[in-house]
Amino acid sequence: MKHTISALVKNKTGVLAESSAAFQDNKINITSISCGETENMDVSRMVICAEGSREEITKVTEQLKAMDFVIQLDDLARKEFVDRELVLIKVEVNKDTMSQIMQIFEVFRADVVGMGQKTITVELSGDQERVEGLIKILQPFGIKSLCRTGMIALKRGDE
Amino acid sequence: MKHTISALVKNKTGVLAESSAAFQDNKINITSISCGETENMDVSRMVICAEGSREEITKVTEQLKAMDFVIQLDDLARKEFVDRELVLIKVEVNKDTMSQIMQIFEVFRADVVGMGQKTITVELSGDQERVEGLIKILQPFGIKSLCRTGMIALKRGDE
Repeated sequence: MKHTISALVKNKTGVLAESSAAFQDNKINITSISCGETENMDVSRMVICAEGSREEITKVTEQLKAMDFVIQLDDLARKEFVDRELVLIKVEVNKDTMSQIMQIFEVFRADVVGMGQKTITVELSGDQERVEGLIKILQPFGIKSLCRTGMIALKRGDE
Repeated sequence: MKHTISALVKNKTGVLAESSAAFQDNKINITSISCGETENMDVSRMVICAEGSREEITKVTEQLKAMDFVIQLDDLARKEFVDRELVLIKVEVNKDTMSQIMQIFEVFRADVVGMGQKTITVELSGDQERVEGLIKILQPFGIKSLCRTGMIALKRGDE
């Protein structure tokens, strides 16, 4: 089962190494991670997606909570949250495929951010299904390169 | 100096732990990381932003290149690239501040993704300056929570 763990952590050297080592020790593969600064320079927010049973994930989250740099930790699998991710895709293009590709971008409301002789680079933000939908539909044209942020999430409501 | 390192890596357990340990060993702080799957299920792309001198960063990138799971690695500081990041911000709102906040969202072309009694949650993708600009302008209203993906990047042009 896929779990999404959101943690507020102190912004210091080694946090990422220690956190990811906890997943490795429990043989859990991290499918995506996003970690960036928050409004407070001393604090980062880390969102980790990982596959594992409830027991395995509970074990690793307990270990994380015990680390001195972890300020707060939520397993978002059990809560209502807004999730988003961002993708940049460079897709091959020629005069025959151009208009079809542009129509796809329009349907997905994806923004073109770069253009070369043989490729076009597009940006899309959305939930995982939307991002995966665009990737799937562009695959037959030839994806030259692709960069995905991994999911970020915030709880719904005022909390 | 801020460096942005983009790496294609094999999608397996321990990659993140070993990579981030290399930064820790060299006492380099990772300011943001984004790691997600690519169009190829066996391969992930990792974009790491870190602060360090050219020598320090060269040392750690050489160590990374020697790791068996690293397929390709670029230091984007020296190349032309498109960079983007995504942020979710939950900001406090009341009847007096509502219209001003909505105008700010319009100027930044930020999309509202959730609304509570006392807060409004917005999504913005853009380069780092744009994201930081929105955070700065919303700070006086009270930021309840914030989640940032960290930067992703693709080379400009066809390559």
